[in-house]
Amino acid sequence: MEVEPLYGGIEAGGTKFICAIGSGPDDIRAEERFPTTSPAETIGRAVAFFRRWQEAGGPALSAIGIASFGPLDADPASPTFGYITVPPKPGWANTDFAGAVQRALNLPAAFDTDVNAAALAEWRWGAGRGLHTLVYLTVGTGIGGGAIVHGRLLHGLAHPEMGHMRIPHDRERDPFPGVCPYHGDCLEGLAAGPALEARWGQPAESLPPDHPAWELEANYLALGLMNLVYALAPQRIILGGGVMEQSHLFPRIRQKLLQLFKGYVANPALLQDMERYILPPALGQRAGVLGAIALAQQTHLSGGK
Amino acid sequence: MEVEPLYGGIEAGGTKFICAIGSGPDDIRAEERFPTTSPAETIGRAVAFFRRWQEAGGPALSAIGIASFGPLDADPASPTFGYITVPPKPGWANTDFAGAVQRALNLPAAFDTDVNAAALAEWRWGAGRGLHTLVYLTVGTGIGGGAIVHGRLLHGLAHPEMGHMRIPHDRERDPFPGVCPYHGDCLEGLAAGPALEARWGQPAESLPPDHPAWELEANYLALGLMNLVYALAPQRIILGGGVMEQSHLFPRIRQKLLQLFKGYVANPALLQDMERYILPPALGQRAGVLGAIALAQQTHLSGGK
Repeated sequence: MEVEPLYGGIEAGGTKFICAIGSGPDDIRAEERFPTTSPAETIGRAVAFFRRWQEAGGPALSAIGIASFGPLDADPASPTFGYITVPPKPGWANTDFAGAVQRALNLPAAFDTDVNAAALAEWRWGAGRGLHTLVYLTVGTGIGGGAIVHGRLLHGLAHPEMGHMRIPHDRERDPFPGVCPYHGDCLEGLAAGPALEARWGQPAESLPPDHPAWELEANYLALGLMNLVYALAPQRIILGGGVMEQSHLFPRIRQKLLQLFKGYVANPALLQDMERYILPPALGQRAGVLGAIALAQQTHLSGGK
Repeated sequence: MEVEPLYGGIEAGGTKFICAIGSGPDDIRAEERFPTTSPAETIGRAVAFFRRWQEAGGPALSAIGIASFGPLDADPASPTFGYITVPPKPGWANTDFAGAVQRALNLPAAFDTDVNAAALAEWRWGAGRGLHTLVYLTVGTGIGGGAIVHGRLLHGLAHPEMGHMRIPHDRERDPFPGVCPYHGDCLEGLAAGPALEARWGQPAESLPPDHPAWELEANYLALGLMNLVYALAPQRIILGGGVMEQSHLFPRIRQKLLQLFKGYVANPALLQDMERYILPPALGQRAGVLGAIALAQQTHLSGGK
């Protein structure tokens, strides 16, 4: 009987790291979490976690996956592959994250954004199983998206920045100027958690379901999804992140999107099946660290490429 | 010496068909064009063109590619693969185009939209050579887009409809409501040729380069491209179609796009290299029929899949 390869995963967030060892959602053998401090200390603790496993004689790991905050360089052909580049997080600029892990553990290290990793995990084990093309969008303190196209994570010229698409903004209905420091009223500037809080003067999670904030929010998110459908033709869209924990948003978004399409889609079956088209993630909070393991698995199965 | 396989291509437009035999832009051995009339007559003339080649003892064709007006079904797993579905063109609804060609000639028939075929041809032989991810957008009587992702035409849930993305529309600056029968002021509704003609009361090609129409046009197209960059992260964008024959639009669009990004892109090299990022097609008017040949080649090389 062939033994299933085992992987290490690091979910590197701006406030905490989660490290795990396993092969998938039903097989996590060890896990540890700790706060994000300096690169040397935090990466050092991650490396120490995997070293303890190795020294205790646990089954060998085949690769490590890193699902990281960014911005970062995930292009294996780039001289700065594996680096966190110019993050808002102090002290982390130009950190050779993947290189440090790879050298310390002598294992291949896969490296990608947290949202790409979550997209991969949902495709591999969650709400996107069996599809070849999907979008995963997270709506929280920012809006970020990852896509699987033809069964692979979309990496073109770097990675997508779906939250920064421009959408119609009716300033008579909503004079709020948006909070994106770059674009003002892009999708993220109008619809991420901080935009809700700034527009309504209270945190998004404290707004009741019948507050007019949510009609407006559903409208903006539906406009963003409409553009993603017309640009990428995904077979499914998975919506995660803190704002989407307001589950009443799902039916509102589906309804708005139907209205916006006005019947015009290349595959009419979509219009009859919106409940299976726009979905919450199946892996929930675990998508990040499972995404890291999925990155490791993908690198291992493709022979390190 | 191995003989290069030879293919047939049919560019099926709403007003004319172009049929060709060859293996690429430098090797077209025969070509014929005729007006688009009824399906039976027009497909019959295309079949007759290839039959004459076969009966004259020309080198055998390995496959036929069809680059067609639509809407159409290009999903090989669908029971109506190869059909033109519900086109505006009278008489062509539910036409089994690829099936008719395949049965008459006893050759594999590839089938896709004209814009997807043009994207494939530009990637194979034109302005997108050597890239793995690109967008081809045509701006003419409509706006349509095709994408190559990871070296394959993007087919998710059917094909993209990039022209129907929604963008900001400042009605104080431009009160024109848009001409899209479905969405009014989507990108196509604001920026395709008929929108220019309806807004300014004269055909787009008669508007002089210093007419304010072009600043507005460049602005709308740049907003659409911004969304495509953030959704798909293409390595290059090729802009074709009748409206883009106004070559002064290219520098305007590049400049507007730079302004819209506000420095925010995942790959900063893009900002330094806009002249290589936004380009006209290299194959020009020939992209359609060469795209049909590229479709045939792709089907042949992938073993008919």
